[in-house]
Amino acid sequence: MAAPRAPCRIGDALCDIDTPALLVDLDKLEENLKTMPRTLEKYSNLKLRPHAKSHKCPTLAKLQVSHGAVGVCVQKLTEAEAMVHGGVEDVLVTNEIVSRSKLTRLMSLARLATVSIVADSQQNVRDLSDAAHRMGVNIGVLVDVNVGMPRCGVLPGPEVVKLASLIQTLPNLTFKGLHCYQGSNQHIRKAAERAGATAEAVDKAAAALKALEDEDIKCDYVTGGGTGTYMYEASSGVFTEVQPGSYVFMDADYGRNFGEDGQPVHQFHQSLFVLATVQSVPEGNRAVVDAGLKALSMDSGVPLVYPNTDIVYHCGGDEHGVLVPPGSYKIGDQVWLIPGHCDPTVNLYDWLVGVRGGRVEALWPITGRGPGV
Amino acid sequence: MAAPRAPCRIGDALCDIDTPALLVDLDKLEENLKTMPRTLEKYSNLKLRPHAKSHKCPTLAKLQVSHGAVGVCVQKLTEAEAMVHGGVEDVLVTNEIVSRSKLTRLMSLARLATVSIVADSQQNVRDLSDAAHRMGVNIGVLVDVNVGMPRCGVLPGPEVVKLASLIQTLPNLTFKGLHCYQGSNQHIRKAAERAGATAEAVDKAAAALKALEDEDIKCDYVTGGGTGTYMYEASSGVFTEVQPGSYVFMDADYGRNFGEDGQPVHQFHQSLFVLATVQSVPEGNRAVVDAGLKALSMDSGVPLVYPNTDIVYHCGGDEHGVLVPPGSYKIGDQVWLIPGHCDPTVNLYDWLVGVRGGRVEALWPITGRGPGV
Repeated sequence: MAAPRAPCRIGDALCDIDTPALLVDLDKLEENLKTMPRTLEKYSNLKLRPHAKSHKCPTLAKLQVSHGAVGVCVQKLTEAEAMVHGGVEDVLVTNEIVSRSKLTRLMSLARLATVSIVADSQQNVRDLSDAAHRMGVNIGVLVDVNVGMPRCGVLPGPEVVKLASLIQTLPNLTFKGLHCYQGSNQHIRKAAERAGATAEAVDKAAAALKALEDEDIKCDYVTGGGTGTYMYEASSGVFTEVQPGSYVFMDADYGRNFGEDGQPVHQFHQSLFVLATVQSVPEGNRAVVDAGLKALSMDSGVPLVYPNTDIVYHCGGDEHGVLVPPGSYKIGDQVWLIPGHCDPTVNLYDWLVGVRGGRVEALWPITGRGPGV
Repeated sequence: MAAPRAPCRIGDALCDIDTPALLVDLDKLEENLKTMPRTLEKYSNLKLRPHAKSHKCPTLAKLQVSHGAVGVCVQKLTEAEAMVHGGVEDVLVTNEIVSRSKLTRLMSLARLATVSIVADSQQNVRDLSDAAHRMGVNIGVLVDVNVGMPRCGVLPGPEVVKLASLIQTLPNLTFKGLHCYQGSNQHIRKAAERAGATAEAVDKAAAALKALEDEDIKCDYVTGGGTGTYMYEASSGVFTEVQPGSYVFMDADYGRNFGEDGQPVHQFHQSLFVLATVQSVPEGNRAVVDAGLKALSMDSGVPLVYPNTDIVYHCGGDEHGVLVPPGSYKIGDQVWLIPGHCDPTVNLYDWLVGVRGGRVEALWPITGRGPGV
């Protein structure tokens, strides 16, 4: 099985890119990379650890590190492997890993880089210790706390203490701190409601910290927050690190968030696009493009046509999008689309095409792509 | 960029498969491969050309050919390349290809295998002829007819005649016939309504044929029909070839179609599964598995838990599924899920894991996977 082909060559004009292709506007990306640490300057000792689940691309992770990040978060083992093999030196896995073969692979990474992981059960903590012992490595473990999103994590309270104590007791583990991420807050539309919901998550993180303090367990590391809420976590006095991911790219869904001024949030630029080609303009009443469900994740809504905001994209199945009205599009024209949700859209592609001034300037492999395994 | 890793090795027990993984039950697959041609035996001269967009795997396409198929359909160039390079000798591209570089690639394939394609505009037909001439090959072209799905295709009538004549006139092209696929009929739930809607599509295909006949243009090839309706196209007397794809795998969405007896259609077995692992059972009220939006396409609904039909899968974001109630699942248990929609779910994976008798018996690369390019 060969490595997947790239949609173009560096130096190509945009019209020579085979579609559908995943483009990043390098000027806008670079602005986003610079803006993020600037928004955090006022909080001393607050660390930035961007979430690489958004881009799955070690080249981009390294750029984040060169812009002040302490390392990255990842959501699964294959992303961790992509990051470490791509040269990232500090990786936090913000998800539980449970099977024996995957735990062995995780510990193998811990030989090459600083790798830490979250856990939410005594069994998993024991398995982590066994695997680390077997492989002769030490690994940092954070307690995964449920701060309002009913997925993984233990409730703030005695369970946090039990797990932290167990981590401290077992060989080859180091208790690192608390993981307190509330994903569903990120897309609450109104700023005041988003702030209120985040305040609840912060209270839960504080309760977990208090439970540890009551038992004299030292904890100086609390991490969480995404692109939609990270400013609230950053200013909370409870969190010591934030994990925004989407800010490098943004997407149509984040574009529907409003700021405190009641206007759409525009702190970060839309830098990510799917480039499509018009393949048919049937009956003159629609333009059909070559990007459907296999080129765009529609879980958070359809993509927007850029910059023609009066033209609406309708999903035409696996391989097609139907643009209505067709505007002045003719067969062969390229169309820029803003994905509804960046993370799972990026996941469909093997290459990120960096463009600037109408030319392809970079081709970055998305080596963390895929369902996992 | 290395080729993507496989989730297991041939010979492994199921419990050794890293998850999420895409499994096919080989016994059930083989039944489906045998059943399809059997259902068509009574129609003399009717050809079977399965749609490979469902599996994107040349190994499986070759199995279809060895079970009586004349070749396969594909929905884009990268699928065509995967099929031809994987040894399939007759490939029909059921979609318009328009850019210069892709047309060149298409003609390059036409040197290696019998490749034909559909077109729905004069410009595209001219471009096909130019590209074929440039590359010194001949290619068969079908007129793409809109038989009721407002996507690509020309309306049955004078446009069909114009395009067929142009194909006959231009160098390096051969007029092959009519492409008349109506995708949205496939999932109409009630058999009588599905039959009625297909009768309308058949009438439109017949009208397109009549328009050609009136102008003395010979046409002995009409192709279309999917897993939901192909029996109606097969018995129509108008279609000479059917293109079912999903029948090899089936999915939860097809499982909601009813047959003429008012019962769920069960002509074909569910052979495709996503294997997931329980990573957390928080508070005892839910089990969280490691398969979310990056492992399962949810465009046609969430996956079903197999065989526990009382346990409901809720999407937990990109990497998680939340099972409620948790049943007796504990951390580390593997869970079998029936995907909502097979085609875009398969598109997320690089490997298809063939299992039989509790063991991995085959590992097939899904070389046609990807957004296209």
